[in-house]
Amino acid sequence: MAILERNDTGAVAHLTMAAPERLNALSDEMIAALQAEFDRLKEQPDVRAVVLSGAGKAFCAGHDLKQMTAGRQAEDGGRAYFADLFDRCAQMMMSIRALPQPVIAQVHGIATAAGCQMVASCDLAVAAEGTRFGVNGVNIGLFCSTPMVALSRNIPRKQAFEMLTTGAFIDAERARSLGLVNRVVPAADLERETADLAATLASKLGKAVRIGKQAFYEQIEMPLEQAYAYTGDVMVQNMMVRETEEGIAAFIEKRPPDWSQ
Amino acid sequence: MAILERNDTGAVAHLTMAAPERLNALSDEMIAALQAEFDRLKEQPDVRAVVLSGAGKAFCAGHDLKQMTAGRQAEDGGRAYFADLFDRCAQMMMSIRALPQPVIAQVHGIATAAGCQMVASCDLAVAAEGTRFGVNGVNIGLFCSTPMVALSRNIPRKQAFEMLTTGAFIDAERARSLGLVNRVVPAADLERETADLAATLASKLGKAVRIGKQAFYEQIEMPLEQAYAYTGDVMVQNMMVRETEEGIAAFIEKRPPDWSQ
Amino acid sequence: MAILERNDTGAVAHLTMAAPERLNALSDEMIAALQAEFDRLKEQPDVRAVVLSGAGKAFCAGHDLKQMTAGRQAEDGGRAYFADLFDRCAQMMMSIRALPQPVIAQVHGIATAAGCQMVASCDLAVAAEGTRFGVNGVNIGLFCSTPMVALSRNIPRKQAFEMLTTGAFIDAERARSLGLVNRVVPAADLERETADLAATLASKLGKAVRIGKQAFYEQIEMPLEQAYAYTGDVMVQNMMVRETEEGIAAFIEKRPPDWSQ
Repeated sequence: MAILERNDTGAVAHLTMAAPERLNALSDEMIAALQAEFDRLKEQPDVRAVVLSGAGKAFCAGHDLKQMTAGRQAEDGGRAYFADLFDRCAQMMMSIRALPQPVIAQVHGIATAAGCQMVASCDLAVAAEGTRFGVNGVNIGLFCSTPMVALSRNIPRKQAFEMLTTGAFIDAERARSLGLVNRVVPAADLERETADLAATLASKLGKAVRIGKQAFYEQIEMPLEQAYAYTGDVMVQNMMVRETEEGIAAFIEKRPPDWSQ
Repeated sequence: MAILERNDTGAVAHLTMAAPERLNALSDEMIAALQAEFDRLKEQPDVRAVVLSGAGKAFCAGHDLKQMTAGRQAEDGGRAYFADLFDRCAQMMMSIRALPQPVIAQVHGIATAAGCQMVASCDLAVAAEGTRFGVNGVNIGLFCSTPMVALSRNIPRKQAFEMLTTGAFIDAERARSLGLVNRVVPAADLERETADLAATLASKLGKAVRIGKQAFYEQIEMPLEQAYAYTGDVMVQNMMVRETEEGIAAFIEKRPPDWSQ
Repeated sequence: MAILERNDTGAVAHLTMAAPERLNALSDEMIAALQAEFDRLKEQPDVRAVVLSGAGKAFCAGHDLKQMTAGRQAEDGGRAYFADLFDRCAQMMMSIRALPQPVIAQVHGIATAAGCQMVASCDLAVAAEGTRFGVNGVNIGLFCSTPMVALSRNIPRKQAFEMLTTGAFIDAERARSLGLVNRVVPAADLERETADLAATLASKLGKAVRIGKQAFYEQIEMPLEQAYAYTGDVMVQNMMVRETEEGIAAFIEKRPPDWSQ
């Protein structure tokens, strides 16, 4: 069994982290497998939405501490290995945002440290009732400094700071009210609800979603005037897409768009 | 009947988009009328608050798709027209923020696409119960890339992304909990509640509000240290205003300020 | 009695603004006393958490308007004094963020203008039920331009703008839902609940919290890619801390870490 499984249903790719005995820890192998799959998806425009989930009782419990500890055996005490590890991990997280497709985290059990970072790094998240979220590295003396990059761009500042310094869990409902997840559903419905959301996204015009997703993250870091200059160009580009012309015409004529050709 | 009506009550200017048969679409004419009125208001310091509403059953349904489609007849397929249109629209949206007066969106019915962007671009928003908000261009293949500039500066990231990629509506209460509107009131009270809020704003010292509104949007895009250096100067400038001296003196003497002279 | 009292319990320093007859106004003396204490705390790594509260019936009512008015007697009408005052005040507020220890505002009664800014400037805040928050300088013609720097980095934009331009109070529960405070507790429990939170923070590895707090505010102002490059280095630095090695080893061995040596 691969460490990362992929099953496609129609235009939706479903990735499952499959190292349940280690709570899907982000080992070197898991990071590499995720990166490889994201690199592949980047070149697959027929895939129009991605779901990311974890096998077993948790979504993801963060970095693989045993593997990291083994890394300390190196002559430099692990310094070079750690630098490389955090760099690979950050690249993988940023690849989620760079993907042309929207990525939905399907979260259950726990999502802690870099596992919570993955939820924050996905474009959208659906959580099962009972899921717990934490950036609790502080409890073992390792502040969640990379996870907080994603977390603090999802939820308000004081609430992020509290999670980071207390190491306390928040529940799914709180995660939703803070902005970390989009929807909370009964555990029994998690897969179906996430699949429904993915199917909704996949039903849209892929080109428009791709244009929009990229622009979303670009403009969000710009001053207002620059953001408008940039997205104005994006809108023009979008208007010149053949299927968009059809979509608008169909809307005016009160009929569904025909994007099949 | 003009496409944009203006009625002033005391120090409050009330603008009403008046193309109800087109759900107050942001046609070339509507954008021009709004821009012209904002340009006028900029030079009218006696106006101390602005309310923006829509006639008929909706606040505003976004761009005028029929007019845009007609623009495709040009030799370049509309490219130059669209570039100009989105530029004019963005300038108009940014003019709201640049106005010396606070601008309140009085929202009912629907506010979609660039109509939702107008709500997000106003300084404040009051919505009637039952109002629906959406950035649903994705449904016709035109991602709401310019609307998201304003929207993503009002509400959390994942919730903005969900609205943009699903094209789904949110209701007024959800809009309030996300930060897109300030108040939700029964439809029958919308006009009065908005007028009350406008009257409250208009009762403040106009010079102070003008200084503060400008500084608000300037500092919000600065790093912390720069923001403090900048607003420190703004505070000094504000302290040197004659009416502010009176306001502070009156407070110390436990009497209402006399700003009449 | 000093204008600022300090009582240490274990690794927690508790500062109390003690000018209750002036609602703990941020006079020149109070700002200087706070700055001096923050400068001292910066050099006291054994202190691992700080609580900031106010004596009497309010947390803090902002600047000392009588003192400011007296400053107008200078030849320049107070201009130089005000510039210096706002600079000193901003430096003091930024010192909270620059402290190696997390700082918790323990808030009761009212927190207005620069008093509300102090709450926003602290890393965390616990409020008593019934506390009221406002940035109401606009009511006397002095827009809260420096307070809004901190406030607008804690709560959503439209809600900050409303508080600033209406001058209206919000209650503790609303402050919590907006993100301005972390917890709301019965007034009778305020001191104990805050002390418990402080004790939790103090129980963590001080080096890790220090590393993390500094990184939190640095990365939050960076574009994503830069934030990851920066925090990746921070994680490596954290991994090389001796106590962190022990913390991770203890976690793997399912025992509490021994950070005593």
